Amino acid sequence: MAVKRLLVDVHTHVYLPRYANLLRTRTSVPRIVERERPGAQGVTEERLVILEDEPISGRPIGSQYWDRTEKLKFMDLHGIDLSIVSSANPWLDFLPAPSACELASALNTDLDEYCASAPTLADTALRRLYGFGLLPLALGVTPNALLDAVKQVAALPHLRGIILGTRGIGSGLDDELLEPMWEALAETDLVVFLHPHYGVDKKAFGERDNGHVLPLALGFPFETTIAATRLILSGVLDRHPNLRLLLAHSGGALAQLSSRLASCIAHDPVAATRLEHDARHYLGRLYYDAVVYGCEELGFVSDVISRSTGYANLKASAKDSAEAVDRAFGSKRMLFGTDHPFFPPLSETEKWKSVVENLEAIEGVQGWSEGDKAGVRGGNALELFGLKP
Amino acid sequence: MAVKRLLVDVHTHVYLPRYANLLRTRTSVPRIVERERPGAQGVTEERLVILEDEPISGRPIGSQYWDRTEKLKFMDLHGIDLSIVSSANPWLDFLPAPSACELASALNTDLDEYCASAPTLADTALRRLYGFGLLPLALGVTPNALLDAVKQVAALPHLRGIILGTRGIGSGLDDELLEPMWEALAETDLVVFLHPHYGVDKKAFGERDNGHVLPLALGFPFETTIAATRLILSGVLDRHPNLRLLLAHSGGALAQLSSRLASCIAHDPVAATRLEHDARHYLGRLYYDAVVYGCEELGFVSDVISRSTGYANLKASAKDSAEAVDRAFGSKRMLFGTDHPFFPPLSETEKWKSVVENLEAIEGVQGWSEGDKAGVRGGNALELFGLKP
Repeated sequence: MAVKRLLVDVHTHVYLPRYANLLRTRTSVPRIVERERPGAQGVTEERLVILEDEPISGRPIGSQYWDRTEKLKFMDLHGIDLSIVSSANPWLDFLPAPSACELASALNTDLDEYCASAPTLADTALRRLYGFGLLPLALGVTPNALLDAVKQVAALPHLRGIILGTRGIGSGLDDELLEPMWEALAETDLVVFLHPHYGVDKKAFGERDNGHVLPLALGFPFETTIAATRLILSGVLDRHPNLRLLLAHSGGALAQLSSRLASCIAHDPVAATRLEHDARHYLGRLYYDAVVYGCEELGFVSDVISRSTGYANLKASAKDSAEAVDRAFGSKRMLFGTDHPFFPPLSETEKWKSVVENLEAIEGVQGWSEGDKAGVRGGNALELFGLKP
Repeated sequence: MAVKRLLVDVHTHVYLPRYANLLRTRTSVPRIVERERPGAQGVTEERLVILEDEPISGRPIGSQYWDRTEKLKFMDLHGIDLSIVSSANPWLDFLPAPSACELASALNTDLDEYCASAPTLADTALRRLYGFGLLPLALGVTPNALLDAVKQVAALPHLRGIILGTRGIGSGLDDELLEPMWEALAETDLVVFLHPHYGVDKKAFGERDNGHVLPLALGFPFETTIAATRLILSGVLDRHPNLRLLLAHSGGALAQLSSRLASCIAHDPVAATRLEHDARHYLGRLYYDAVVYGCEELGFVSDVISRSTGYANLKASAKDSAEAVDRAFGSKRMLFGTDHPFFPPLSETEKWKSVVENLEAIEGVQGWSEGDKAGVRGGNALELFGLKP
């Protein structure tokens, strides 16, 4: 079936021109700075500095971060039919509330237009680009402003979700003040893409120069894991079972730590009786991108989703889950992604190593049928985002 | 075979009386405080406070933390034949160097005696208790003092390894000053048990009261993951392939983040060419306790160990690993543990929920034969620790 054969990228970022321009005017992180290219006197280049702890040199940034033509070229090179594009971190976290509200609204309109005017997908009524909008999540933003933004995004035809970081309006996503936002999001079809930015305190990474490895490889997934766990513990998933939450990087370490989490909850007098289900149950309510670069990781996340049905009650044990683990079941909640334009190859190659690896990983999962793999590559995304070719 | 049927606990802690007495004299963390039992006027109880961020109430502590009779009772209750006992965190981290050296030496002798005078294991020449000693890892300790301690532990007949935290002598385990220690440890048969204590900065856990759940369920495994990754990145495993490193809680999130780690290294100009192997290869050189409370987690860690042979070179990809994944292979590096006396049941039960779950998890792993499971329950430990019944 043609539908099943599409390759859909759900994790691919853009700094829209309006946002990049703002970063160029800034004198503190996040910012875009212009510097002389090392070893090329008189030639300047733009560098992106988004992390507090990052060296001022940041990382190279160029048209692939904002130019739609570059996005489409990248898609063509890798056979990606359709992308659900999202603003990259750190979104609007650093702005005062009024600017965040104004910019969120403008960027949502920009992104809808970016998608609306994109080429159509051959033989379908679809465009090749859809998007995740932004909410004005910044310090001091009111619940009503968030609700207005949810309404705006839900009404823009090419936006099919929102992307958010983990800070909320200053106190994280388990903040009681965000309850109306979760309620509103659960009433829409919007997919909520949870994405890291801050990592964890860099002191944990020591004094050796390991480049960006530790904050990216560990800090990012740790942050997502903590945020998702705090959401579970706060009861947001109990109160809003219809919320469609997509976790970046396959949820970080959530899958591997989920039985430990269930055990720690069961042994803690403060938390033991708070939730409706064993912690492992909630992992079956979530969606996971397939950005993990390894087939064993994908298969494992799939198992953990599959077993969740066996953990519906608080007294469930490994014995109850054993029958529930049909790896194919979990694949339905997993979706291909690239993390473009991050992780560009260090040397010139035809295709990007990071993309090839994620595709090889899907191909290599033991226990997934060709149909399951086609679902992860695109079919699941079309269904989740309501995109009927 | 009788040998294969033994149940061996490699993750079980003690606060030796000498150490507990020290904690009682202290006025700052870590300490043991005596307080009135809530709801029982005039009745006092001891509480253990080991984390900087922990409420002063800490957690209840009693004879199960130091009394060998209690340890043996716990073992009998759960059918544990033999335990490799280790001091609990935070070891000697908080002491000035001279006290750390003195106490390490005394505690090592104490622990050897604790084991030497334990009952023998029926029909064997073995005792029921063996131990992990301590090195005086504290700020300002000299490499020579560490080498002396390695020699002491290696010479004590019932000590078969050392346990250590992640701080080293102040700058973590990737500290160049620790190189002689790694070299000395690699030349012995001692197993190095890497165990967390500090977690990550508690700010990441937000303001809601979730008891001890987040630091224990996430912070602990994150810390172990970071420490193991820093060891890999520093080249310690390249330089000392014979080092026998056992990771607590199955290595935390190391397995799930290992392909991402490999990808981040390959894409980072600082780190890309530093190591001899793809990062995933090193996971096959490590040992993992089986303290994860879920069969899918155990199976996954086993897969990740198994695939490591396919990642011997830096250009390996998912395609190379696919053939290497024989889940049984990985089981040889996994070892049952309980984390006793932590995670006691909240209500009175015959057996501890935490122990039952870890045993059920081993039983439930798909793709492990009965022989593989027997190995994880005890056979692998007997071999690793050189204990021939």
